[in-house]
Amino acid sequence: MELERAKRKIIEAHTIAISGHINPDGDSIGSLLALGLALKKLGKKIYMVSADGVPKLYRNLPGAARIRKKVPFPVDLAITVDCSNKEILGDTYAMFRKSKDILEIDHHEFRRPFGTIQVVDHKAAAVGELIYLLLKKLRIGIGARIGQNLLTSLVVETNSFRLPNVRAFTFRMCADLMRRGVDFYKLVDMVYWSKSNESAILTGICLSRCVFLKHGRLAWSIIKRRDFRKVGGKDEDVDAAADEIRSIKGVKIAVLFREKNKKLLRVSLRSKDNLNVASIAETFGGGGHFDVAGCSIPNSKKTITKLLSLAKKSL
Amino acid sequence: MELERAKRKIIEAHTIAISGHINPDGDSIGSLLALGLALKKLGKKIYMVSADGVPKLYRNLPGAARIRKKVPFPVDLAITVDCSNKEILGDTYAMFRKSKDILEIDHHEFRRPFGTIQVVDHKAAAVGELIYLLLKKLRIGIGARIGQNLLTSLVVETNSFRLPNVRAFTFRMCADLMRRGVDFYKLVDMVYWSKSNESAILTGICLSRCVFLKHGRLAWSIIKRRDFRKVGGKDEDVDAAADEIRSIKGVKIAVLFREKNKKLLRVSLRSKDNLNVASIAETFGGGGHFDVAGCSIPNSKKTITKLLSLAKKSL
Repeated sequence: MELERAKRKIIEAHTIAISGHINPDGDSIGSLLALGLALKKLGKKIYMVSADGVPKLYRNLPGAARIRKKVPFPVDLAITVDCSNKEILGDTYAMFRKSKDILEIDHHEFRRPFGTIQVVDHKAAAVGELIYLLLKKLRIGIGARIGQNLLTSLVVETNSFRLPNVRAFTFRMCADLMRRGVDFYKLVDMVYWSKSNESAILTGICLSRCVFLKHGRLAWSIIKRRDFRKVGGKDEDVDAAADEIRSIKGVKIAVLFREKNKKLLRVSLRSKDNLNVASIAETFGGGGHFDVAGCSIPNSKKTITKLLSLAKKSL
Repeated sequence: MELERAKRKIIEAHTIAISGHINPDGDSIGSLLALGLALKKLGKKIYMVSADGVPKLYRNLPGAARIRKKVPFPVDLAITVDCSNKEILGDTYAMFRKSKDILEIDHHEFRRPFGTIQVVDHKAAAVGELIYLLLKKLRIGIGARIGQNLLTSLVVETNSFRLPNVRAFTFRMCADLMRRGVDFYKLVDMVYWSKSNESAILTGICLSRCVFLKHGRLAWSIIKRRDFRKVGGKDEDVDAAADEIRSIKGVKIAVLFREKNKKLLRVSLRSKDNLNVASIAETFGGGGHFDVAGCSIPNSKKTITKLLSLAKKSL
């Protein structure tokens, strides 16, 4: 990690632009805002950039209103947070490459570096941890506003301390931020306690119908049009249901069918323990990641059976 | 908190029995085990007691196999963890009252004290925090086995750091335990990624039946005997359902009724935003925390309506 060099470049720069990645999550937005608010304190001209704007969930974070979609002109120093390659900067990269330096602050294990300075540690639970270290190095005081953003990055990226990326340092940092007046409860309320009534009921219906095959290693469920008609709610209200099925003990592959209309089913596939569900999705003209994939299939018992038997074979 | 007195009584005692409450949760079992394993190190004769045994989920915790359902005879010192009144000790209390002293270690806000020494702090996120302080006071080294139990108490009682009881000390303690070789991921995997099939389906049924009152500020649901008969599974398999109801956006009070038998309903109450549900539970002879409480009521529509209208009034 080139913390010392990063510090020097920041101190030398007059204009600094900071960007997270497209389709931003809490780590990207939280890190961007924490760093932006902090460097403003040094009297720099700061541009906070997010090509895709700020998701609704994070619009109340301190400083979020200052995030813009574009950088107006090249800056002395461009900083990217949570970006493992230049493509996920979106259109922002075209402007960033014109700046004197690009500082990458990131924690991805698989990367294609594109900057001139790297503050990278794949053992960091979130990029927020690296921002925290950098602010300490710069001796910038962390108040409640910066702290709230840093904590958001940690809480979201660790799924509220449920993922294996959590380390002792993560907790030490949390303890420190709590002392600085961060409203921890407000944050958790914002991130986790915001499921809609319809989403809760539809997810409930989905779980109540779960069918377990292959000694519980394969689990599937279905949400029908009439469920949506009865409960209300939209397709996106059941987005999390497939993950919930996967989290059941012993389940290695989870399959959720959603009736899009009389003729079409949307299929969400999830896996654990390195099982490839993208290949199942591909068979039906879909795609995705190794452990998170999807496709659309004809709405018939026959295709459901066909897809499930393919899933059985993958186990 | 009588930490100093508790320390002295522990050092003086030769035989010590420790018990949590009936229908034990992770805080009760984790605290019981951590303290039991630690006091064994002092060369005491230790009995770890749980009238209801150990829920399946916690049977792999270090030391869990040593927990027994009864105390064989009175001891010099009886210690209760996570018990706000003597009734929730179940049958154990009859034997405990015959011991020379009863040390209560607890964090409930609303209590009916029954012991001779109190280590009580309602600001502690979990009883595990108080055990940790006591072990420091006794200068007993915390290794991976004790640490795993302490961390279980914290993780479960804070719902993985999603409840407002979390404080800076909670995180500091976690950081310390991580350094002692605790397998954090194994713990999270055990607690959160290990819902049983039955638990998933029953929780699903419960959510699918949610009724929203007072513009969604009050939500309630019920699990019937026939659900258990149809799905299988035990009462403990729906322990988390009340929390799930509370986590819905806008819900301030969540009420879950569980049919224990034809005559009795168990009621779990949860609240957000500092609403007092313990007072509702107390009206029906129950108790608990400000935001997590419970009671038992006659199994009839009339009492359900009565309880819900009391809940409405608390909003």
